[in-house]
Amino acid sequence: MNEFAWLIAPISALVSILLGLYFYFYIKKQDSGTEKMKEISSAITEGAYAFLKREYTTLAMFVTVVSVLIFIFLPAPPIWNSEANLLKHAAMALAYLFGSFCSALAGYLGLSVATKANAKAAQAARNGLNKAFPIGFRGGGVMGFAVVGLGLLGVSIVFALTNDPYVVLGFSFGASALALFAKAGGGIFTKTADISADLVGKVELGIPEDDPRNPAVIADNVGDNVGDVAGMGADLFDSYVASIVAALILGQVLNNLPLSKGVYLHMPLVFAGIGILAAILGALTVRVGKSGDPGNALNMGTYVTCIIFAVLTASATYLLDYEWRIWGAAIVGLIAGVIIGMTSDYFTSDDKPPVLKTAQASTTGTATTIITGFSYGLHSVFPPLIGIGAASTVAYFLCSPLGADYALFGIGMAALGMLSIVGLIISNDAYGPIVDNSRGIAEQAGLGEEVIRITDELDSAGNTAKAITKGFAIGAAGLTVIALLASFKSTAEEAGGTITFDLMNPLVLLGALIGIAMPAVFSAMVMLGVGRNAERMIAEIRRQFKETPGLKEGKEGVKPDYAKCVDIATVGALKELMPPSILTIAVTLIVGFVAGVEALGGYLAGAIFSGLLFALLMANSGGLWDNAKKLIESGVHGGKGSDAHKAAVVGDTVGDPFKDTAGPSLNTMITVMSLVATLFAILIVDNNLLKLLGLS
Amino acid sequence: MNEFAWLIAPISALVSILLGLYFYFYIKKQDSGTEKMKEISSAITEGAYAFLKREYTTLAMFVTVVSVLIFIFLPAPPIWNSEANLLKHAAMALAYLFGSFCSALAGYLGLSVATKANAKAAQAARNGLNKAFPIGFRGGGVMGFAVVGLGLLGVSIVFALTNDPYVVLGFSFGASALALFAKAGGGIFTKTADISADLVGKVELGIPEDDPRNPAVIADNVGDNVGDVAGMGADLFDSYVASIVAALILGQVLNNLPLSKGVYLHMPLVFAGIGILAAILGALTVRVGKSGDPGNALNMGTYVTCIIFAVLTASATYLLDYEWRIWGAAIVGLIAGVIIGMTSDYFTSDDKPPVLKTAQASTTGTATTIITGFSYGLHSVFPPLIGIGAASTVAYFLCSPLGADYALFGIGMAALGMLSIVGLIISNDAYGPIVDNSRGIAEQAGLGEEVIRITDELDSAGNTAKAITKGFAIGAAGLTVIALLASFKSTAEEAGGTITFDLMNPLVLLGALIGIAMPAVFSAMVMLGVGRNAERMIAEIRRQFKETPGLKEGKEGVKPDYAKCVDIATVGALKELMPPSILTIAVTLIVGFVAGVEALGGYLAGAIFSGLLFALLMANSGGLWDNAKKLIESGVHGGKGSDAHKAAVVGDTVGDPFKDTAGPSLNTMITVMSLVATLFAILIVDNNLLKLLGLS
Repeated sequence: MNEFAWLIAPISALVSILLGLYFYFYIKKQDSGTEKMKEISSAITEGAYAFLKREYTTLAMFVTVVSVLIFIFLPAPPIWNSEANLLKHAAMALAYLFGSFCSALAGYLGLSVATKANAKAAQAARNGLNKAFPIGFRGGGVMGFAVVGLGLLGVSIVFALTNDPYVVLGFSFGASALALFAKAGGGIFTKTADISADLVGKVELGIPEDDPRNPAVIADNVGDNVGDVAGMGADLFDSYVASIVAALILGQVLNNLPLSKGVYLHMPLVFAGIGILAAILGALTVRVGKSGDPGNALNMGTYVTCIIFAVLTASATYLLDYEWRIWGAAIVGLIAGVIIGMTSDYFTSDDKPPVLKTAQASTTGTATTIITGFSYGLHSVFPPLIGIGAASTVAYFLCSPLGADYALFGIGMAALGMLSIVGLIISNDAYGPIVDNSRGIAEQAGLGEEVIRITDELDSAGNTAKAITKGFAIGAAGLTVIALLASFKSTAEEAGGTITFDLMNPLVLLGALIGIAMPAVFSAMVMLGVGRNAERMIAEIRRQFKETPGLKEGKEGVKPDYAKCVDIATVGALKELMPPSILTIAVTLIVGFVAGVEALGGYLAGAIFSGLLFALLMANSGGLWDNAKKLIESGVHGGKGSDAHKAAVVGDTVGDPFKDTAGPSLNTMITVMSLVATLFAILIVDNNLLKLLGLS
Repeated sequence: MNEFAWLIAPISALVSILLGLYFYFYIKKQDSGTEKMKEISSAITEGAYAFLKREYTTLAMFVTVVSVLIFIFLPAPPIWNSEANLLKHAAMALAYLFGSFCSALAGYLGLSVATKANAKAAQAARNGLNKAFPIGFRGGGVMGFAVVGLGLLGVSIVFALTNDPYVVLGFSFGASALALFAKAGGGIFTKTADISADLVGKVELGIPEDDPRNPAVIADNVGDNVGDVAGMGADLFDSYVASIVAALILGQVLNNLPLSKGVYLHMPLVFAGIGILAAILGALTVRVGKSGDPGNALNMGTYVTCIIFAVLTASATYLLDYEWRIWGAAIVGLIAGVIIGMTSDYFTSDDKPPVLKTAQASTTGTATTIITGFSYGLHSVFPPLIGIGAASTVAYFLCSPLGADYALFGIGMAALGMLSIVGLIISNDAYGPIVDNSRGIAEQAGLGEEVIRITDELDSAGNTAKAITKGFAIGAAGLTVIALLASFKSTAEEAGGTITFDLMNPLVLLGALIGIAMPAVFSAMVMLGVGRNAERMIAEIRRQFKETPGLKEGKEGVKPDYAKCVDIATVGALKELMPPSILTIAVTLIVGFVAGVEALGGYLAGAIFSGLLFALLMANSGGLWDNAKKLIESGVHGGKGSDAHKAAVVGDTVGDPFKDTAGPSLNTMITVMSLVATLFAILIVDNNLLKLLGLS
């Protein structure tokens, strides 16, 4: 039985994809509402597809070039060497292409349903909250279950064909590199539109959010989809696959050890498969009554999934004769994920001190709003970092009685445990932008106060769920990159390198100092990209309001040129996403090929530390500024239009690129770095400048 | 001759103190100007002394408690152990007290002259720039030369009496702990006053900076002195002493090695002594003609000092038979310091893209100003981190042919080389707040346009010099803490511990994750302290403008209640400085005594990385917002009063606590952590919870 146990992975992956398809057709048959709504929805869909098409076209070139490079160089030695195994080279390149394709497909599927579900949820909201909620949730579910299904199916196929975790690494790199571009590009697009629409619309002219007079309103809605849905799907797809690969690599080491009974090679696949089943069962329990609280429903689904996962994996451990300690490590990861999510909830909830005090600081001015929010953002890094550290320490010590390699495998399984239920997490997260769009459509199509109130409530539940899911995503990425660091070490050492991470070795130190600078530089590049882009779009919005007669007054029949704004955001995003993403890969390779694997180890460690730090800081300060603004809009401190509100809007606008552009890209960035380093470790061990010069 | 060579240290320290005294009396005999000016100057002096008195009274209690604890516990074993050497315990406690005292004295001296020099420089400015400049520069020089003189004299005395670098560590800890409080307290005070004065005065009421109607104007001037002068003096005092101690500890190891000829124990003292002489000679060359450029004069002085240092240390190396490679390491450090200073100049100069683009972003609104400035701040971390990494790598490889211990000593000497000329750096830096105050006094006393223009020019030279000196200070702190990390490792290993910094050891990883969170939490605490304090003061300023008839209109004879504002800032700063400072020390001890020296090593490494990152980010983004505002005030993008100006003022206000409160405290924070860890390393090796529980 044991040798076929891993088949649970492709099977549940297929079930997951089928569930995604079921949700897709469920959404499709819902009513899209009035002509006006259909019109808006199709404008959003068009904009989103236009962006995605241009993005994927650009990326296709990049992917082609990289796949050729991979074919030439990986696995070591390069193809011109007589010992090179051309079949393996081809397998690597194909795995890479397959990973990119799956990641792009997951993003596309999520996007295509999200842009349909928004109008349908708005329409259903006219019949009450409990009618609209499932549309939002299942819309998110298409994305969630497509992502994990495609991810695990892809990994299973590559693994079944090659039986080599190193080739799966190629698949993972394909997924991550594409995710990096998707995150950065989508993030730049969405915030360009959002900031520009807010600054001119809300701040300068005082018209409401999502007002159809605003030329950037469609671009803003498109942005929610390409940034939050497609980008985020690609992001979690990449963490998910990376965590499985890291565990596979660390598990492979065990296979030659006496205790292992040869079962650990497949354990990550078995647990990942069970994770998907748990998420599916959990998702089926998510429902909300007529007067129910949708936020609670989403979070309850998460808890139910966790419990199902714990029970099913315990059964598998019993049946398949795994060590209980390793099961424990996976559960530790899962629990840590939930706890990290909860603490991030504390920092962004509108009834807790961070948001309350930031809202209060708005009454003394813009500068104090920024300083206060930023400071709480700094505070917020503490609990999750401790959480990640504690989870890895506990997982390690739990498994270390089995041996040192088991202890590292324990860390890998903790990461996998944390990410196992990610199908549900993504569903909850993708729910957010869908209902956010519904609210926009309800406003633009004039569906009336009551519908807007319901969509507001749906939206606010999205924010509640999002706090937990974001914390979860960062915690999972943190544990995953630590597991990847272990895989990097194990891969490099197998190739004859030594990785000590000893900071008293100046190469390690130099690597670490470059590494800690990288996430800062990356963030700066994408945020300045947003800034440059937003300047162009702000000028365009101002121009339209000035030059289109009757637009500002909302004269019947006068419509702004929405497409122009979508176009500016698209062109700008594509221009700005390349340099930081390519820099990430290039500097990693440069450090490795110049200074060797030891320096590269320091570099990875530095980048991971600083990446986690900035990711947490930016996600949480952005979230809390957003909620402080919403709190004021709900009527406290003078409500909408007050000076405090103006200050809070600036805070929110500063937070936008933090939480939606730079912050979430950093997870992907450090994953990509770790994968590139691991993939090239073997080549670098023997071929680096210092070694050639005889200096190391 | 060799055995007396180290006497150059106490001798040049004494010369330095004498030069400081000479400058002091030079300043004292200058004319203080009109009655009005004397009145303002004495209000500032009174406020500054009031703050310092209360601060030192509070700190005296802290210092007393800590000295008792040191007496009981250090050096290991504690006094109740029969093997404890009570004389050594007493020496440690006394060295600690002595260090605290010297640090406090340096701050006091600097402050007492700075508060006198401001009015005198303003008065001299009525006779031209070349009359006012020397008063500003020599006023700064009192502080600069008192700091290095007291520091090196203190180290020399403690070392001569005990011949034990470990006891000098106690002295260094005294200096650093006091510096931490002084930096945090002064930083909170100065920004409370600055932010409040600007927000109500400039933004709400549109009255000029330093307008005497503003109730916070005196508090603002006091703040410049207690924050920038006294705090900064204590800060560089602490880096300076720490760099010497680190080199002494690393040099002691060499003394038993064959190559050393017993000379390396004293080499750090010899080079430090020469550094002071070079700074004195350099300072004497600093002068400015009638139409000269004071900014150039300050920077020329720095370059001249560097050259003198290089020549004199080369002579010493020749005469005293040191290895040339080690001399090279010191020079590498010095050059790196200058280069780092120059790159930080790039990011804060008003004719370079970062400031220009931030100023331009102000035209599209406040949010874009913040995002752009913050992004360039993120970019700015790259060059100095590479610089620190490159300096230590080059120093290491330069010396490694002599042996591994020599290579570490090389890093220590690079740090010392960088800090050797710090006397001049402090003089240049303290010059800034003095002439800034002169400008304020000229404005308040109504000395006319021409005098204000001259003081403006002096002030702007201060900013130019400050960019380089700040970069220098952070670079030096970076190299110093790396040298301290090496000292920590060497101390802990001598006591039987093993320090590997191996991130695959979960305790090291956990330590590192806690460590990287600490600077973020510390920054958050001090900045929220500023925020809380500023809220109180803003309310008071608004109250005075509302309730004092004729104040806003500037009616003859109506004066605001300046003392009330000084009082609010003082009480608040004292309340807010304790928690973050004590937390820094407490968490370090907790990590050590719970998880042992390995975890503590990871913790230090994490804290150093994240501390450098945030220190650079905050110093540079703060500086560039400041200069973007000044650029707009000079007339571009609509000049004063335009919307762009309002946005730039908010940027500047956000940057204030970044660059003057949190940023500069972080250097001191990581130094204190490193010193605490090194001091307690021996005790921790045998006494930690995990060891007691048998878990490590």
